[in-house]
Amino acid sequence: MIKAVFPGSFDPPTFGHLDIIKRAAALFNNLTVLVAHNTNKNCLFTVPERIELLSKMILELRHQYSNIYIDSCDTLVVDYMQKQDIKVLIRGARNVNDFIKENDLSYWNHHIDGNIETVILFPRPEYAHFSSSAARELLIFGKDAEALLPPVVYSAVLSKMRTNI
Amino acid sequence: MIKAVFPGSFDPPTFGHLDIIKRAAALFNNLTVLVAHNTNKNCLFTVPERIELLSKMILELRHQYSNIYIDSCDTLVVDYMQKQDIKVLIRGARNVNDFIKENDLSYWNHHIDGNIETVILFPRPEYAHFSSSAARELLIFGKDAEALLPPVVYSAVLSKMRTNI
Amino acid sequence: MIKAVFPGSFDPPTFGHLDIIKRAAALFNNLTVLVAHNTNKNCLFTVPERIELLSKMILELRHQYSNIYIDSCDTLVVDYMQKQDIKVLIRGARNVNDFIKENDLSYWNHHIDGNIETVILFPRPEYAHFSSSAARELLIFGKDAEALLPPVVYSAVLSKMRTNI
Amino acid sequence: MIKAVFPGSFDPPTFGHLDIIKRAAALFNNLTVLVAHNTNKNCLFTVPERIELLSKMILELRHQYSNIYIDSCDTLVVDYMQKQDIKVLIRGARNVNDFIKENDLSYWNHHIDGNIETVILFPRPEYAHFSSSAARELLIFGKDAEALLPPVVYSAVLSKMRTNI
Amino acid sequence: MIKAVFPGSFDPPTFGHLDIIKRAAALFNNLTVLVAHNTNKNCLFTVPERIELLSKMILELRHQYSNIYIDSCDTLVVDYMQKQDIKVLIRGARNVNDFIKENDLSYWNHHIDGNIETVILFPRPEYAHFSSSAARELLIFGKDAEALLPPVVYSAVLSKMRTNI
Amino acid sequence: MIKAVFPGSFDPPTFGHLDIIKRAAALFNNLTVLVAHNTNKNCLFTVPERIELLSKMILELRHQYSNIYIDSCDTLVVDYMQKQDIKVLIRGARNVNDFIKENDLSYWNHHIDGNIETVILFPRPEYAHFSSSAARELLIFGKDAEALLPPVVYSAVLSKMRTNI
Repeated sequence: MIKAVFPGSFDPPTFGHLDIIKRAAALFNNLTVLVAHNTNKNCLFTVPERIELLSKMILELRHQYSNIYIDSCDTLVVDYMQKQDIKVLIRGARNVNDFIKENDLSYWNHHIDGNIETVILFPRPEYAHFSSSAARELLIFGKDAEALLPPVVYSAVLSKMRTNI
Repeated sequence: MIKAVFPGSFDPPTFGHLDIIKRAAALFNNLTVLVAHNTNKNCLFTVPERIELLSKMILELRHQYSNIYIDSCDTLVVDYMQKQDIKVLIRGARNVNDFIKENDLSYWNHHIDGNIETVILFPRPEYAHFSSSAARELLIFGKDAEALLPPVVYSAVLSKMRTNI
Repeated sequence: MIKAVFPGSFDPPTFGHLDIIKRAAALFNNLTVLVAHNTNKNCLFTVPERIELLSKMILELRHQYSNIYIDSCDTLVVDYMQKQDIKVLIRGARNVNDFIKENDLSYWNHHIDGNIETVILFPRPEYAHFSSSAARELLIFGKDAEALLPPVVYSAVLSKMRTNI
Repeated sequence: MIKAVFPGSFDPPTFGHLDIIKRAAALFNNLTVLVAHNTNKNCLFTVPERIELLSKMILELRHQYSNIYIDSCDTLVVDYMQKQDIKVLIRGARNVNDFIKENDLSYWNHHIDGNIETVILFPRPEYAHFSSSAARELLIFGKDAEALLPPVVYSAVLSKMRTNI
Repeated sequence: MIKAVFPGSFDPPTFGHLDIIKRAAALFNNLTVLVAHNTNKNCLFTVPERIELLSKMILELRHQYSNIYIDSCDTLVVDYMQKQDIKVLIRGARNVNDFIKENDLSYWNHHIDGNIETVILFPRPEYAHFSSSAARELLIFGKDAEALLPPVVYSAVLSKMRTNI
Repeated sequence: MIKAVFPGSFDPPTFGHLDIIKRAAALFNNLTVLVAHNTNKNCLFTVPERIELLSKMILELRHQYSNIYIDSCDTLVVDYMQKQDIKVLIRGARNVNDFIKENDLSYWNHHIDGNIETVILFPRPEYAHFSSSAARELLIFGKDAEALLPPVVYSAVLSKMRTNI
C-alpha cells in the first residue's frame, strides 16, 4: 500500500488544489492533504479554518474517493511523513519557477529521508495560473474569486469576510 | 492496482533510466518500461537490441522488484497505454527545457485520453546531466562511458561496437 | 492608422492562431495574417492551401472584424512589412522557450528596420499547448484534432487527407 | 480609438521606462502612464513626486507624442482601466522571470475584465538590465545613476537627496 | 597577476562554497573570499564568526592553495574590488534563477567599473542544491547538516547552537 | 601559467566572439581560439577560411593582447585541451537555453577530464542576440550584416559572396 501526502498552505484551498487532490487520490492508495504551517507567514485563515475548508471541500469527493484524509503539522513535512510512514510527496509545478523550487525541495527532503519520493503533477491549463495568493489578492481588492474557489470554500470565505467587518 | 509505463528511446539505457525505473517500480504496482519508436530517428541500437539491454539491466533488480516488464511499441504511447489499460505515464525532467517539453506532451496525452496521468520525477543530481545522446556521443568519440551505463549495458555496447569494426 | 502583421507557418492554422488573430484585430486598425514561407521546411499544406484555410477561418469573423487580410510572402517578414508599410509585428509566446526565441527575432527585425515593433501576446491558457506541429502529429497518428482546429480547417484537413489515400 | 495604459511603480522612472513609453505611444492612440501604488511597498519617492518626475520626463516628448498622459491610482490597475475605458495594458518583459510574472498577471487581469488585453514589449538590449530598484541601489550606495535616469529625473533625484541630508 | 574575489554571505559557508573556492583558486593567482554584508539581512552568524569559519575551512587547503585570503566589507563589492585592485568577480550559478540574477548583477558591476569582469562557474551536480539558507533551515529544524557543511564549519555551528540554549 | 581555450564554430566570427576573446585574453595568460569542427554541420566557411578570418580579426588586437592564438581541431575539444595542456574552457551564455546547454557540456567535459574547468562569461547586452547563425541568415537574405561582423570579417564575407556568384 502506497501512502502519499499533498502538503501546502491552502490559505485558502483553490480549484487548482482540488484538481491535484483528485488526481493524486486516483494514483495512490491513501492521500493525506496536509496543512503545513512550519513558517510564520501571515495567513488569511487559521490552521483549524483551513482544515475545515479542506474537509468540506473533500466531503463532496467522498463517494468517489474514500482514501483522502486531512491533517496539519507544524514540523517539517518529512517529519510528518516519517511518523505516518508516508513515502510519496505530491506537488504541482505550474511554471519554470515552481520547477526550480520543487527540484531543490525534493533534493532536501530526499536528503533527510532517502525513502521519500517527490512526485510532480502538471496543473491542467485552466488552473495553471491559480494560487492561494491570487485568491487572497482578489478577495482583498473586492473582486469575485468564485472562479478560483470551490463553492464550499467560497461561501466560507465570504461569511468570514463579512464577520470581520 | 495502478499500472504505470515509463516510455523512452533507451538508445542505450543509462544509469539515469535505471534510477527512474527503480523509483517508479516502488511507486506503482506494475511498471512497463516501453521502448517507443514511433519516430524514425536514427538509432544506435535496434529495438530488439534495446529490449535485450533493458531486460538484462532489469534482471538484476528482479529479486527486489518483481513488477517490472519490458515492451516496445511503434504507435503513440497513449495507444499502447489504452490497449494495456495503463493509466500512469512516468517521465523524468532534468531541467527547464525538459519541463516545458513534458508539460506539452502531458497536455496532449491527457487530451487524447482523459484517464492518462503524467507523473514527473526529478533525476537525482548525480544523473541530472545523463542522457542516451550523451552516452552515444562519448561512445562515438571513443570515450569511456562506463560511468553512464550499467555494467550489462556497457559490456553489450562494447561487444556491439567491436563487432561493427 | 496602425497596421499590424501576424506572420507564421499556419500549417495548419489552429484555434490558438484564431484567438491571436481576433485579439490582434481588436488592437490595431488593420491586420494582415501572413503565411511566411522563406524556409524550405517540409509542410503538410501548400501555401495556397494555407491561404485558403485562413481565408475560410477568417470569413466567419468578417462581420465582427472587417480589418483582417490574408497574404503570403517568400521573403523575410521585415521585407514584406516595409513594402506594405506595416510597423507592428504580432507574435504569441506560450512559454519560456518561445519568449527567448521571439526576443532574438524581435532584436533582428528591429535591427534591420528600426521602425518595426514586435508586440507579444500571451495565449489564453486553453491554447497554451496548441501548435501546428501538435495538430500535424495528431493527424498523422489518426487522432482526433477537432479540439485544436477551427471547424472549417478541420473539415478541409479531413477531406485533404481522404484525397491523399 | 485604442487607449492603452502603462502601469508601474516608477520609483524613479528610468530610461527603460522612457523607451517603453515612446514605443507604446507610437502603437496606440492614447497612452496613460500610471503610477500604481496599491501595495504599501517602501518607496524612495512619494506618488506626487513620481507623477512630477514622469511629467517632466514626458514634457520633452510632447512635440513628438501629444498622446501621453500621466495619472496615478491606488486601486487595482483593472479598476482604473474600467473607469477610464482603457483596453490595453502595456508591460515590458526583460527576462524569463518577468515573462512568468507577467503571464500570471495578464491572466488575472483578463479574468477580472475579459476586455482587457495585455501587450508585452521587449526592452531594447541596452535597457534589458534597467530597473527602478537598480537605480535606487546605485543612488543609495552613492554611485552614479546618470546612465540609468533621464536628465530631468536625475537632477530631481540629486536635489531631493541633497535636501534629505 | 590576476586577482579574483568570491563574494557572498557565507552564513554559514557550505561544501558548495568550498568547491567554488578551490576551483577559483586554481584559476587565478590570488583569490579573496569576501564576506559581503552591505544589506541588513538577518544572519545566523556574525561577520567575525563567518570570517573565522571561512578561515578554518581554508586552513586545510593552505598546503595546496597558498593564494586564498579571507576578508569582509560593508560596502558594495565593486568598491572593495577597486580599493584592492581586483578585476575578477567569481560567482556560482546553480540554476536558471541564479543565471538571471547574476546576469543583472554582472551588468551593474561592469557599469560601475568597466574593468570588472564577472566569471561564472557551474557548481558540481552534487552541490547544485546546496545553499546557506538550506543549511540554516536544516539546522533550525534540528536536522543533520553534516553533508552540507565542511567538518570545521559543522562543529563550530553545533557548539554555537549549544551555547545559545 | 593558466592557459584557456575558447572553442566554437565561428562560421563566421562576430563582434560577440571578438568581445569574449578580448575579455578572456585579459583573464588568462594564454588564450587559444579554437575552430572546433567535429560535427559535420553544413558551414558557410571552410575551416581554413574561418581560421583566416579569426587571424585577421585578432591581428588588430595584437598590440594589446599578444597572448591570443588561433587553432582548429576535428576531435572533441577536451582531447585538444589535454594534448595542449589547457585547463580552462571559456564559453559565453546569452540566455537561459545557452545556460542549460553549457551546464550539460561542462559536466561532460569535466567528466572526461577532471582537470578541465568551464568558465562562463555573460555577453555584453549589445551582443546578447548576436550569433553566427543570425549573421548567416542576414547574409543569405541580402541584409546588411555590418553591425554584427568586425570589418575584416565583413569584407572577407562580401568578397567571398561576390566570388560565389
